Amino acid sequence: MKEFNDLAEFKPAQIAELLQLAKQLEESPEPRALEGKVLALLFLSPSLRTLASFQAAMTRLGGGSFVISPDMSIHGLETRPGIVMDGAAAEHIREAVPVIASYGDAIGIRAFAERRNLEDDLADKEYMALRKLCDIPLINMESAINHPCQSLADWKTMDDLGIPINGGKFVLTWAFHPRALPLAVPAATVHMAAMRGMNVTVLRPDGFELPDSVMHKARKAAAESGGLVEETSDRASALNGAHVVYAKSWSATQHY
Amino acid sequence: MKEFNDLAEFKPAQIAELLQLAKQLEESPEPRALEGKVLALLFLSPSLRTLASFQAAMTRLGGGSFVISPDMSIHGLETRPGIVMDGAAAEHIREAVPVIASYGDAIGIRAFAERRNLEDDLADKEYMALRKLCDIPLINMESAINHPCQSLADWKTMDDLGIPINGGKFVLTWAFHPRALPLAVPAATVHMAAMRGMNVTVLRPDGFELPDSVMHKARKAAAESGGLVEETSDRASALNGAHVVYAKSWSATQHY
Amino acid sequence: MKEFNDLAEFKPAQIAELLQLAKQLEESPEPRALEGKVLALLFLSPSLRTLASFQAAMTRLGGGSFVISPDMSIHGLETRPGIVMDGAAAEHIREAVPVIASYGDAIGIRAFAERRNLEDDLADKEYMALRKLCDIPLINMESAINHPCQSLADWKTMDDLGIPINGGKFVLTWAFHPRALPLAVPAATVHMAAMRGMNVTVLRPDGFELPDSVMHKARKAAAESGGLVEETSDRASALNGAHVVYAKSWSATQHY
Repeated sequence: MKEFNDLAEFKPAQIAELLQLAKQLEESPEPRALEGKVLALLFLSPSLRTLASFQAAMTRLGGGSFVISPDMSIHGLETRPGIVMDGAAAEHIREAVPVIASYGDAIGIRAFAERRNLEDDLADKEYMALRKLCDIPLINMESAINHPCQSLADWKTMDDLGIPINGGKFVLTWAFHPRALPLAVPAATVHMAAMRGMNVTVLRPDGFELPDSVMHKARKAAAESGGLVEETSDRASALNGAHVVYAKSWSATQHY
Repeated sequence: MKEFNDLAEFKPAQIAELLQLAKQLEESPEPRALEGKVLALLFLSPSLRTLASFQAAMTRLGGGSFVISPDMSIHGLETRPGIVMDGAAAEHIREAVPVIASYGDAIGIRAFAERRNLEDDLADKEYMALRKLCDIPLINMESAINHPCQSLADWKTMDDLGIPINGGKFVLTWAFHPRALPLAVPAATVHMAAMRGMNVTVLRPDGFELPDSVMHKARKAAAESGGLVEETSDRASALNGAHVVYAKSWSATQHY
Repeated sequence: MKEFNDLAEFKPAQIAELLQLAKQLEESPEPRALEGKVLALLFLSPSLRTLASFQAAMTRLGGGSFVISPDMSIHGLETRPGIVMDGAAAEHIREAVPVIASYGDAIGIRAFAERRNLEDDLADKEYMALRKLCDIPLINMESAINHPCQSLADWKTMDDLGIPINGGKFVLTWAFHPRALPLAVPAATVHMAAMRGMNVTVLRPDGFELPDSVMHKARKAAAESGGLVEETSDRASALNGAHVVYAKSWSATQHY
């Protein structure tokens, strides 16, 4: 089964192939490539860009999609594992996912962090459980700790803009937001920029350090790509010479 | 006008043709067969499988669909007949249905049992009223007392699994559910299995007898197909030798 | 950028071309004309006909569409201008619209009257602000003071029914509704009938006069088309000899 869960599961050459395919489709659209093909889209969490872009993409390729989300006209979906089903929800997500997948040639799933237990979210526990229920090609449309499609799109945007790889400086800076936000985008972004071979700086206030496992994964990618990953709370030095400043909010993990 | 309201309106040879067509499309997809064709999908009741599968089916055949349901971004739809329209609902379903149908080549309608009056639900009063408003091919996506698409799919599944017709034993067994559920699926299922020519046993506790009209219709189908329909509360004898055990909940009609 | 905001922006010959194209597509469908093309549909206000017909139209032409509305599975959209984003809404419409547009070849936007300030609604302030955010072909799916697609469809219906242009009498009559309704449809309708060259009578009770700017625009269209626009509260004389009676409710502007 083909899966697109995490950029870390791909070699740089495979990423390059995907980006080359995207460029090729931009230049020479193939409006019959996926004729008769169906992408199932399961949104367990809200969306705007992904909701629009995945549907648009299938149309551009001549196929189609359908969207399922718990707040649509469906019976309630229970998402808690091991629960007694005696409430309003008519169906458990563990049963619903294989059913939804059975109608598609591929499936995209979005399932945000539950923000109940940091270890669970860092291990992407919920998404990994859903992943096991699918037997068709699967795309991660944002999980607790990953957002590979956004990262791939960011990679492409930097290519399109001519942002250098070797010597390119990428600053992921923490930004204020009224609500505590998940770790998925910052974790995916820092890894992506490191995998791209850039000099990556995570700029964040004290207390907003990204988890060790996130930084370790990014540093590992940098070691392979010839990139670099640094962390600082010093804004002036971080922003000095930056090619890209990527502003994003995330919550302090000690308050998880 | 072509309609797919009830398996009982088809002859066994027509059912066989539909199943043959399904098999043929599985083996040789026809992704341009319904090019430019539109299926209108009206969900007055919640759905998961039907919502996904009908949209997927239209894509597979090269056409498309649109979904309308009262909890989407539409003006409220009033469904009560003969009501004064002085409330929040902007439109009556009696006016909305012909409008929705006017944009499709065919229409699917789901309208669950209202569970206010047993006679009305057994006569499928609401669905029959909606049916009269459509002048394009119509598909019953589950009404108060029928679910022909699910029954046709179940028939196909049994064919695919090699479940015998003559001599095949089909047990529809009542199962517990925390809420009182409609009669549509059990009624359609017992009729379908009887129409398929199987030996059908309805296994249910005392007090959960299916209504007389449901059993009568199933027995009539069995008489024509060479099948048999029995009813019992004796679990051991019912399950003995069963090829298929179909577990489903339904509510006791004396508490309707 | 191509836009379809207001019939007044088109010359009669261009309207005639659009109606001719519609007729031609009715007679000779072109199910591959928009192969691979995407129409983004943004519903900031509720819909039934438009929601169904735009999706159906794209399918008929071989393309596809996606629907975004604030009550779907998306992050909340803030629509108030100049607001501090410290509440539940994750995103401001000013940012969302360009993103949504970026996934389409064309975009349709519905944004009803806000009914807070009459001058703002008569100037179509909200829609004009959204319009500036789009850089792809744009279709007005009903704004505070316009509904050009409905008007074009009404024009076509009259053509199909053989309603005369010169000498044809069109009566827009105010009708009771339990709620105060926007001015978009009556304003667009009186203008359309005048632009078509008909003798238009607005029949309304005292106190329900259409705003001066609406009547002025309709009279200007009549002057160019050879039509006529009158206003009266005398039902008998208004309805006498009418070819079309168009009943619609709108609110009295002094209570705005």
